[in-house]
Amino acid sequence: MTSQPTATNDARGTKRVYLFAEGNASQKDLLGGKGANLAEMTNAGLPVPPGFTIPTTVCNEYYEQGERSPQELWDEVTAALATVEATTGKRFGDHANPLLLSVRSGAKFSMPGMMDTILNLGLNDETVQGIIDATGNERFAYDAYRRFIAMFSNVVLGFRLDNFEHMLEQFKARLGVRLDTELDARTLREVVGAYKALVLKNLGIDFPTDPKAQLRMAIEAVFKSWNNDRAITYRNHHKIAHDLGTAVNVQSMVFGNMGDDSGTGVAFTRNPSTGEHKLYGEFLFNAQGEDVVAGIRTPRPIAELESDMPGVYAEFVAIAGRLEQHYRDMQDLEFTIERGKLYMLQTRNGKRTAQAAIKVAVDMANDGLITQEEALMRVEPTQLNQLLHRRIDPNAILKVIARGLPASPGAATGTIVFDADEAEKRGMLGDKVILVRVETCPDDINGMIHAQGVLTSRGGMTSHAAVVARGMGKPCVAGCDGLDVDLNAKTMRAGDLLLKEGDTLSINGATGEVIHGEVPTIEPELSPEFRTLMAWSDTFRKLGVRANADTPEDAAKAREFGAEGVGLCRTEHMFMAHDRLPVVQEMILANNEAARRQSLAKLLPMQREDFIGIFRAMAGLPVTIRLLDPPLHEFLPNHQDLVAEVAVLRVKGDDPQRLAQRERMLREVERLHESNPMMGLRGCRLGLTFPEINEMQVRAVFEAACTLKREGVEVLPEIMIPLVGHVNELARVRSQLEVVAKETMAREGVEVDYRFGTMIEIPRAALTADQIAREAQFFSFGTNDLTQMTFGYSRDDAEGKFLTRYLEGKILPANPFEVLDRDGVGALMRIAVEKGLSTNPTLKLGVCGEHGGEPSSIAFAHELGLHYVSCSPFRVPIARLAAAQAAIEQK
Amino acid sequence: MTSQPTATNDARGTKRVYLFAEGNASQKDLLGGKGANLAEMTNAGLPVPPGFTIPTTVCNEYYEQGERSPQELWDEVTAALATVEATTGKRFGDHANPLLLSVRSGAKFSMPGMMDTILNLGLNDETVQGIIDATGNERFAYDAYRRFIAMFSNVVLGFRLDNFEHMLEQFKARLGVRLDTELDARTLREVVGAYKALVLKNLGIDFPTDPKAQLRMAIEAVFKSWNNDRAITYRNHHKIAHDLGTAVNVQSMVFGNMGDDSGTGVAFTRNPSTGEHKLYGEFLFNAQGEDVVAGIRTPRPIAELESDMPGVYAEFVAIAGRLEQHYRDMQDLEFTIERGKLYMLQTRNGKRTAQAAIKVAVDMANDGLITQEEALMRVEPTQLNQLLHRRIDPNAILKVIARGLPASPGAATGTIVFDADEAEKRGMLGDKVILVRVETCPDDINGMIHAQGVLTSRGGMTSHAAVVARGMGKPCVAGCDGLDVDLNAKTMRAGDLLLKEGDTLSINGATGEVIHGEVPTIEPELSPEFRTLMAWSDTFRKLGVRANADTPEDAAKAREFGAEGVGLCRTEHMFMAHDRLPVVQEMILANNEAARRQSLAKLLPMQREDFIGIFRAMAGLPVTIRLLDPPLHEFLPNHQDLVAEVAVLRVKGDDPQRLAQRERMLREVERLHESNPMMGLRGCRLGLTFPEINEMQVRAVFEAACTLKREGVEVLPEIMIPLVGHVNELARVRSQLEVVAKETMAREGVEVDYRFGTMIEIPRAALTADQIAREAQFFSFGTNDLTQMTFGYSRDDAEGKFLTRYLEGKILPANPFEVLDRDGVGALMRIAVEKGLSTNPTLKLGVCGEHGGEPSSIAFAHELGLHYVSCSPFRVPIARLAAAQAAIEQK
Repeated sequence: MTSQPTATNDARGTKRVYLFAEGNASQKDLLGGKGANLAEMTNAGLPVPPGFTIPTTVCNEYYEQGERSPQELWDEVTAALATVEATTGKRFGDHANPLLLSVRSGAKFSMPGMMDTILNLGLNDETVQGIIDATGNERFAYDAYRRFIAMFSNVVLGFRLDNFEHMLEQFKARLGVRLDTELDARTLREVVGAYKALVLKNLGIDFPTDPKAQLRMAIEAVFKSWNNDRAITYRNHHKIAHDLGTAVNVQSMVFGNMGDDSGTGVAFTRNPSTGEHKLYGEFLFNAQGEDVVAGIRTPRPIAELESDMPGVYAEFVAIAGRLEQHYRDMQDLEFTIERGKLYMLQTRNGKRTAQAAIKVAVDMANDGLITQEEALMRVEPTQLNQLLHRRIDPNAILKVIARGLPASPGAATGTIVFDADEAEKRGMLGDKVILVRVETCPDDINGMIHAQGVLTSRGGMTSHAAVVARGMGKPCVAGCDGLDVDLNAKTMRAGDLLLKEGDTLSINGATGEVIHGEVPTIEPELSPEFRTLMAWSDTFRKLGVRANADTPEDAAKAREFGAEGVGLCRTEHMFMAHDRLPVVQEMILANNEAARRQSLAKLLPMQREDFIGIFRAMAGLPVTIRLLDPPLHEFLPNHQDLVAEVAVLRVKGDDPQRLAQRERMLREVERLHESNPMMGLRGCRLGLTFPEINEMQVRAVFEAACTLKREGVEVLPEIMIPLVGHVNELARVRSQLEVVAKETMAREGVEVDYRFGTMIEIPRAALTADQIAREAQFFSFGTNDLTQMTFGYSRDDAEGKFLTRYLEGKILPANPFEVLDRDGVGALMRIAVEKGLSTNPTLKLGVCGEHGGEPSSIAFAHELGLHYVSCSPFRVPIARLAAAQAAIEQK
Repeated sequence: MTSQPTATNDARGTKRVYLFAEGNASQKDLLGGKGANLAEMTNAGLPVPPGFTIPTTVCNEYYEQGERSPQELWDEVTAALATVEATTGKRFGDHANPLLLSVRSGAKFSMPGMMDTILNLGLNDETVQGIIDATGNERFAYDAYRRFIAMFSNVVLGFRLDNFEHMLEQFKARLGVRLDTELDARTLREVVGAYKALVLKNLGIDFPTDPKAQLRMAIEAVFKSWNNDRAITYRNHHKIAHDLGTAVNVQSMVFGNMGDDSGTGVAFTRNPSTGEHKLYGEFLFNAQGEDVVAGIRTPRPIAELESDMPGVYAEFVAIAGRLEQHYRDMQDLEFTIERGKLYMLQTRNGKRTAQAAIKVAVDMANDGLITQEEALMRVEPTQLNQLLHRRIDPNAILKVIARGLPASPGAATGTIVFDADEAEKRGMLGDKVILVRVETCPDDINGMIHAQGVLTSRGGMTSHAAVVARGMGKPCVAGCDGLDVDLNAKTMRAGDLLLKEGDTLSINGATGEVIHGEVPTIEPELSPEFRTLMAWSDTFRKLGVRANADTPEDAAKAREFGAEGVGLCRTEHMFMAHDRLPVVQEMILANNEAARRQSLAKLLPMQREDFIGIFRAMAGLPVTIRLLDPPLHEFLPNHQDLVAEVAVLRVKGDDPQRLAQRERMLREVERLHESNPMMGLRGCRLGLTFPEINEMQVRAVFEAACTLKREGVEVLPEIMIPLVGHVNELARVRSQLEVVAKETMAREGVEVDYRFGTMIEIPRAALTADQIAREAQFFSFGTNDLTQMTFGYSRDDAEGKFLTRYLEGKILPANPFEVLDRDGVGALMRIAVEKGLSTNPTLKLGVCGEHGGEPSSIAFAHELGLHYVSCSPFRVPIARLAAAQAAIEQK
């Protein structure tokens, strides 16, 4: 009467199992990335081994019910299994023609290696015989069986893998062989027995033999793996939500290890490092996929498959092309060849370097596969960072001590560390370290985050180290087998050279070179595709992008990167210069205005030259100059150092003159001491206390501007008054400085187009922006200080004292000094924009805090309708792209 | 055809001169306080010498036109003068029967002695003869003339008065007399000649003889006096606007110095010190008003007038009564008796002490003269301060070295300073000083502001020192002629005792005693009228009033003053106690949680006892307990001190054990060091770092509460979590502490009615109050920290570094740590209230910053609809009254 449903729904109408044929690529939320793609590929008629997906909702249900699966799940699994059995003609647990399964996690976002996978599930002493009968390959069958026992014991039973590996090494040693493939069937059968005995001895249980029980245990182990430590660490680092859950993909096994007519491989439809439009990948004959990914054997380039198996290669190339057209993006493919037949195991959008991301996006847009908007949305702005920083000077004479795979581009120098925890520890202290490992595993993630770069002696371009490093934008050299790494002794040997922990090493992730000592670096060259992408960004973005630049060099660099002006020129950095500091100190130590003015007169020509250089670099573009901001004690020697020096001078008693001088300095430092200098005498408070400092600065600005205008250079200075909290501060300082500006222009006989404005960095300024806007021609949000005051966090203290704990403990969703806090700081900005424009509709609005270079903060600036963001020169391209993305997303 | 108008209007319709008969008491803005009252008295038929008032608008016009008077003013003055001439039958400048005039300033708000007055205007060598003819009193005429020359030269020409006084002393010395009244007519005529010669010699001009020119110059001198330094200082101190301007009163002179049947005096309708309903004042026969006010001669009590001139006295008493009924307030009267006829020169609401203000207001309300609301509005809340603080222990054995007039109540101790500038300087440094002067003058205001109390050797109860000190609520002993004050030598002698600058002295302004050294003080007793006023306040106010109390003693005191609970109990003060600090330090130095918990276990019983004491004192009322707030380094020794101690220990080398201990302490202090501790590891950040500290505190609270509940004492603890900026902080801490609360109650077997809430003191908390309110049962605005963060001012630094300059320079209208900043901090509070109530309509809202005791801030709290304010115990009555006033004003 009724047909057997392949999967049933429970009372809630929730479907708990989806056959691959029942899903499609749009269902990543439900089926995970891998499951959705398997479904899509299946429905596209590609050769995918049949199977089914347990959706993410069931994983969440499992956790909601206290880590218990509903009975309905098992009912639906049984039904789906029957369909798979029917399709493959094999039966699960059958002694004659057994179906073996893979069980894999598959979350919405790819988390490579983070969660567990079990292959060859369904094997036991009876079904192994069925496999032997079906394949006639006893060696393969026992190899699969011993792998399965090890993998299952590790993932499901929590028994360490190295126990098995150690035992396998013993077998190999006994037989005097080096490779696993050299072990024969008889030995592997012995290994199986030995593995099972090991489990019994150590865990006190017989290894589970019932295939259905194996399947249940494996599915639940995948659910559990969603919340293992390394998965949580990975999600934290990549800002993936913890409540998404993982899907579980159960798929019939195909075997790449059924002999030399079998194999397995991974490939990208384009080069994930460079973006070159050419199939890129690796394969191994007579191997299962894990052999490729884990980097245990060094695989062969995909192109070599053509000569060995031209038919399979041609089919694979065709499929790769179809999939790229289908998904309209570069694909990351996994395949297996079972006795000459190609099976596609997985496709997904491939991870890529920034360089590749740009080239792929621009090429695809130029080819008409995607639009320019899509191309812009394909590149993660912060990834550009990789391209913009210095790389190793190609002309440098380098002491290259080894060469590995160029797994993730960029150059890194640091001290050698052999342990991920140590790398994390030192990295958090600010040390630059290179993490050196034989190969990395998911447990090393923390160390990789805090290292400058990663070097491994084993593994390929798709090894864990390579994939993770590329994702992080960190340089990585992988599979450098010329290195002998001894993790216990904490040494590495390259030929005759023995390096130990703490020695300095450099790596070039673009070439695979490993270099002894530090390396000279040069500016990066930007690809034509990069320039194209930037040009497209500029056509879409609404936000202007300026740079924070304190020197002519920074200004020139910023302009080269596309900055449309200087949004923040910090004049205090000019005061800090080696040759000026003594004059600045003399000015601070002056005990009356006349003496102060004398010192300032010496500084004036220096400041004027600074401004001439910056104005010239930014000819025709606005330059926002912030008047002196930091507390004066920052220009004086450190208090503790002075105390110590004075003490020593007193004890020695041999240099009374120096002692008197240092004592005077100490008194001055103590006089200027503040309990909370961040909230003390700085910014416009300083200008209102010593107006002559601001006057000198404004005179220098206008003298510089007049000099250049006489040369025909267009100059647009914007004088920015910092730390305003009350309109009267701004009004007072501005009116005083307008006089100086007008006097200077009159004396020089030149008219300059200038503006006066203020930072909005004190909460009160935002709250009273209507009053302040009456006195300002522009507002520039100083989001660093505004974040400090809005949160009441001293940035100098918070990170070391409690902020790290807050982030780890999820008290804060993100570091507010990195990602602009929209609820608090953003609310103040919104108030300031609305109130400011209400009294001054021509007000120019910008951001010059570090958030000006952070994409989500840039998106917020776009939302608020600001006119520009300003960021460090190297962040200018990031800001241009992020601004374009914000505009495209708003459409 | 047309009648001569008494005053004309200009094109703008502005009337520039008002005859007294043309105004009334409601016109204080226009006519000034004095002018409006002269008009009111004139129209009430009182014996007021005729005259006219130039309104404040003309003063402002004078300044607007660059210190020039419009011609229309002089036309109107001429016309008004004609009316006065007609009324008096005298003519201005007439040789036969000359009219003499007084010219006085008169602003809206009384500014005693701040601006200038000229009497006897119109005298010259011809008119003086007319006065002699009219009065037959040559001595009086020349006395008036010489006074006029001195006064006019001083006020109008800027020639120092002491030049004249010095010359007069020479005349007296030559004649061997002591009093001015002993100089005869002939001598005074010589004095006039000598004075004029002195002017010619020093200023190079003849003293002006044309009465009309004298009048013009005098009127403009009064305008100018509005902006002299002492007037500006006075307005700053009393927060009077600088753009009000002064009116000028021109009035026909009557003479109290026409012989022994003439006199002059000042009186209050009630006692301005105590409020007693009895005429209170002083007079002098044969004197002009300045003789009384300046304190040059010591005047007689008003009651003595009755025996000398019973008719005049009776008329005066009747007029005083009528005026008090008319104005419905205590009046401050000036009168002159000219040859037996009484003239009223001035009436105004009298300045009074807090004690008097209360008694007068309550008495008048009880008599039905004013309403209870009016009575409440009559008392300046901050004035209550005078009544609530300690006074000298009446049982103390005091070394009274002199006795003067009890000019302003209260006791003060400090080091002697003889110079106002020195008093200001030392006072600003935090020293407690007593300003000792022969008599004070308006130039001494700055010094008086910064002194604890004022002592003068000359002058009466209405002398400058007495009036100003009472206005400031500062203790003052005046006219202490037993003291020999030598301002040059900076010494004062009382009998054999010679005191010099820097010695310690005490004064009792309630008794007039001058005491050598420091004095023991006791609690004040509160008058029945005070209690009545407080009871009335409570019937009108909407705001609750709680106290900030950290000890059972403070809590008891607060309850006595009417507090309805504790709004802030700062638990750190308990940690600071002498016997606990070592345990607290041990806890901080512990390097693991277990050791920390051990130390905390020792603190627990101590904290429990604290809470038992406070809960008992506040039985039945809520007690808000703030969990540990300050950074831990505050409990450790001062860094600098430690550095020094360690250095010394090292040099000496004789106590290695102590050295090791101090070195460890130093390391810990350095570890805890923060650049900006105000924005560092404190408040809930501390609790989230060391949860065991909060746990101990909450356990102590609940154990104390349970103990008392078992005794039948009602306890309502409110646990307040400080420095919350993100809802997650509150949620995390609260959930952890709810567990502790429930565990403790379960263990004790007692249920306690408790709440959890938070401070709103971080701008972000206010901005995200909707989120935070979901986790809080109450908000208490910590306006001290909120002001710090909103302005970005470190309170520890700002006042010394720039805030004083900001206030002096009018960059800020008021110190935001004293008077709540409505535009900025207030805006955040409004956001917090609106957002907080939007998600939690039952949220309780209070203020526990110092603003909770400041009247205008209390008014703002009322406006915002908060439920209560909390302030220091001594401020509770102030808050009760201010809250009532806010409610009355809103009606």
